[in-house]
Amino acid sequence: MPVQPRTAPGTLELLPPQQIAFQKMLDTIRRGFERFGFLPIETPAFELTDVLLTKSGGETEKQVYFVQSTGALEQGKAPELALRFDLTVPLARYVAQHESKLAFPFRRYQIQRVYRGERAQKGRYREFYQCDIDVIGKDTLSLAFDAELLAVIHGVFGELAAFGLGATTIKVNNRRLLRGLLAGSGVAAAHHGAVLHEVDRLGKMDRAEVAARIAAIPGVDAEAAERVLAALALPLDRLGELGLASDDFTRGLAELREVHATALALGVPADRLAVDLSIARGLDYYTGTVYETFLDAQPGLGSICSGGRYDDLAGLYTKNKLPGVGISIGVTRLLSHLMDAPGFAATGSTAEVIVLNADARYQADALAIARDLRAAGIATETYWDAHEVKKQLKYVDQARIPLAILIGERDHAAGNVRIRQRAGEGGERRPDLELPRGELLATVQRLLA
Amino acid sequence: MPVQPRTAPGTLELLPPQQIAFQKMLDTIRRGFERFGFLPIETPAFELTDVLLTKSGGETEKQVYFVQSTGALEQGKAPELALRFDLTVPLARYVAQHESKLAFPFRRYQIQRVYRGERAQKGRYREFYQCDIDVIGKDTLSLAFDAELLAVIHGVFGELAAFGLGATTIKVNNRRLLRGLLAGSGVAAAHHGAVLHEVDRLGKMDRAEVAARIAAIPGVDAEAAERVLAALALPLDRLGELGLASDDFTRGLAELREVHATALALGVPADRLAVDLSIARGLDYYTGTVYETFLDAQPGLGSICSGGRYDDLAGLYTKNKLPGVGISIGVTRLLSHLMDAPGFAATGSTAEVIVLNADARYQADALAIARDLRAAGIATETYWDAHEVKKQLKYVDQARIPLAILIGERDHAAGNVRIRQRAGEGGERRPDLELPRGELLATVQRLLA
Repeated sequence: MPVQPRTAPGTLELLPPQQIAFQKMLDTIRRGFERFGFLPIETPAFELTDVLLTKSGGETEKQVYFVQSTGALEQGKAPELALRFDLTVPLARYVAQHESKLAFPFRRYQIQRVYRGERAQKGRYREFYQCDIDVIGKDTLSLAFDAELLAVIHGVFGELAAFGLGATTIKVNNRRLLRGLLAGSGVAAAHHGAVLHEVDRLGKMDRAEVAARIAAIPGVDAEAAERVLAALALPLDRLGELGLASDDFTRGLAELREVHATALALGVPADRLAVDLSIARGLDYYTGTVYETFLDAQPGLGSICSGGRYDDLAGLYTKNKLPGVGISIGVTRLLSHLMDAPGFAATGSTAEVIVLNADARYQADALAIARDLRAAGIATETYWDAHEVKKQLKYVDQARIPLAILIGERDHAAGNVRIRQRAGEGGERRPDLELPRGELLATVQRLLA
Repeated sequence: MPVQPRTAPGTLELLPPQQIAFQKMLDTIRRGFERFGFLPIETPAFELTDVLLTKSGGETEKQVYFVQSTGALEQGKAPELALRFDLTVPLARYVAQHESKLAFPFRRYQIQRVYRGERAQKGRYREFYQCDIDVIGKDTLSLAFDAELLAVIHGVFGELAAFGLGATTIKVNNRRLLRGLLAGSGVAAAHHGAVLHEVDRLGKMDRAEVAARIAAIPGVDAEAAERVLAALALPLDRLGELGLASDDFTRGLAELREVHATALALGVPADRLAVDLSIARGLDYYTGTVYETFLDAQPGLGSICSGGRYDDLAGLYTKNKLPGVGISIGVTRLLSHLMDAPGFAATGSTAEVIVLNADARYQADALAIARDLRAAGIATETYWDAHEVKKQLKYVDQARIPLAILIGERDHAAGNVRIRQRAGEGGERRPDLELPRGELLATVQRLLA
């Protein structure tokens, strides 16, 4: 009685055409990161439990997957290992561990899967890819990196647009400025976190409702809530009208302006980059610049790339102060959004050419052709079975390989080969090409270009 | 009190220069697989326990890592999930699960990490990469694929040689032929497994010792052991002298000859491919062709790429018969062998160029240069801090970036830029180039080429 073959719930597994498209997305992201000189790292999927779980045990720790070998399980020991739930904690551990061997500012990218023991529900994955970049300074880190990340993200999403995402807009804000605005609106520092948590709802919830929720926070009154929301709605160049002069306000405003101006100088177009004071990023982890990124066509999908500036990456592992700025692309979610779009997995195969076994007598010629094409860097498959040509062509169709090469008796007698081109998008058949063997490589290169 | 930052035992974590080199190795392998039209798949790191562990519980199952979420752990439930310990069981599950959507013969490659709860010891990893290719047929599978895999492996290792591996030799044999030879030498079928297990030691152990070990198997006598070892030492074209005529012998010999001849026709050079009758691959899983691959300079390292032909991939999950042939590169072991070789991680950075902040007044020009270079596909880093140029150049050295671009006051006045080239391998300084801004891109491209 065979076991029912199935994947674990909350995992995403792709068929080859989708995997090829996804791999191209990952390659695009990687190239986008490397174009700015970011350095790759990979960390092990599991970390020692005492290293990974040093925090006070918030929501994330409830979702941790623990790892135990058969022996440890039998002995009933507490698990020594756990799967990473993000790439930030492993980065902190990595930088602290290898600090003496790294050049700072350390600019790293990391594209790996992370694991969360979530309750299974649609759109929630227990295993998913994250694509992170961070720049880590020693003691200090130039604000220019906050702007550079905007240029990296713009470059990456500019190229990802072609996968069916369309245009994206990056929203940028500054948490220091927000705190200055809250203080200036009469909200005590103790309530800033709670208010910003509500401010984060502005994209998804009615303004009036958010105002009511802020006013409902004990110690914050309705007038303060109104002042906060009015301030957040102002454009950057009118914030001066508020007459605020706190250090947080002044410095936060200056930072936000500089990051915006430097991003423009780095080539991010003004219409792809929006200062939006309502972007708060709930996490207190962030201390300055914060980012979110939205698909113009589907803002309701939420932010697909978020991050920000933090004061200290690795306080849990080292006494050295390591400020940083980083951003993370939730690429599995993007993929699950794109997967069913028409044309997403249009390339069916890695093979660009297949050499058919049209007549066993000329198989030596067929192999020589395959060798020549591969030597020229063209991905070439060989059809080995001596099936009827009709059956072979059916396979070519199914595998969606652009060009098939055949040598029939007449072709061979004339010193020719035949190229069958894949039908067009509308299904219209293209004529076979018959050409001298010596012209094959150049013709294939031309057809594939 | 900070937590000591450290990785779990049995994992391999790389510094960026090594990671860049390793990534190039993986890219090379992937390109080598795709050049033959193999299709990528990825499977989740964990599988359902009842799907993954369907076998009778051999050595491998003792090494399994089980995965449990916090909640499941607290409830003391038996683990529902386990990390894959190879890529073969997930492939079997994948093919059985998606069978109706795949085109057969299904040619897949998979480059992912696998996990084994090994006892920690040098050279044994608990997490390591495997790079696998397999071709899976439905009911039947042409023997030509056994030869094609030889061509793929030869292509991959031909390119990997440049990473410091040097030349490799692939050894090929046929298990059916071995069984025919054993039967013809007077070894009963019931003892074939035990004898082949000893034959596998021939590379590592003295011939006399292996003979004694075979003769010590109950039911096998010393004369039979001698006959076996004498037969295994014969070259292929003298096997006829043995006068054997069993189906296994005849068919196994014909298969081995055909695989060898087809591999040569596919361009594998005769001196890189050796028929070696002592290659047995212990596993009974393999039924026909078997492969092992050795570094010419270090045969003692053992096989770095092994595999073979099997009768049925997914009998545990489906009643359909799915014969296959596959091979696996143990790339983490290769890497750990290469890592300390001089020149392995010679490229220190992904950045090919860095634009320095030599004079803050010309920072706008510097940013424009970085933009232009990136637009031309050149990986370009920007130095942001207004540190002394000496300190900036020290960073460039440390990060091993080939070219640094500076604009000083005199350069700017003359409409020029300056390029500082990285010192040569012997440490000899190369002269700075001073050139008009308009010639920069072409010059950089020429220097990098």
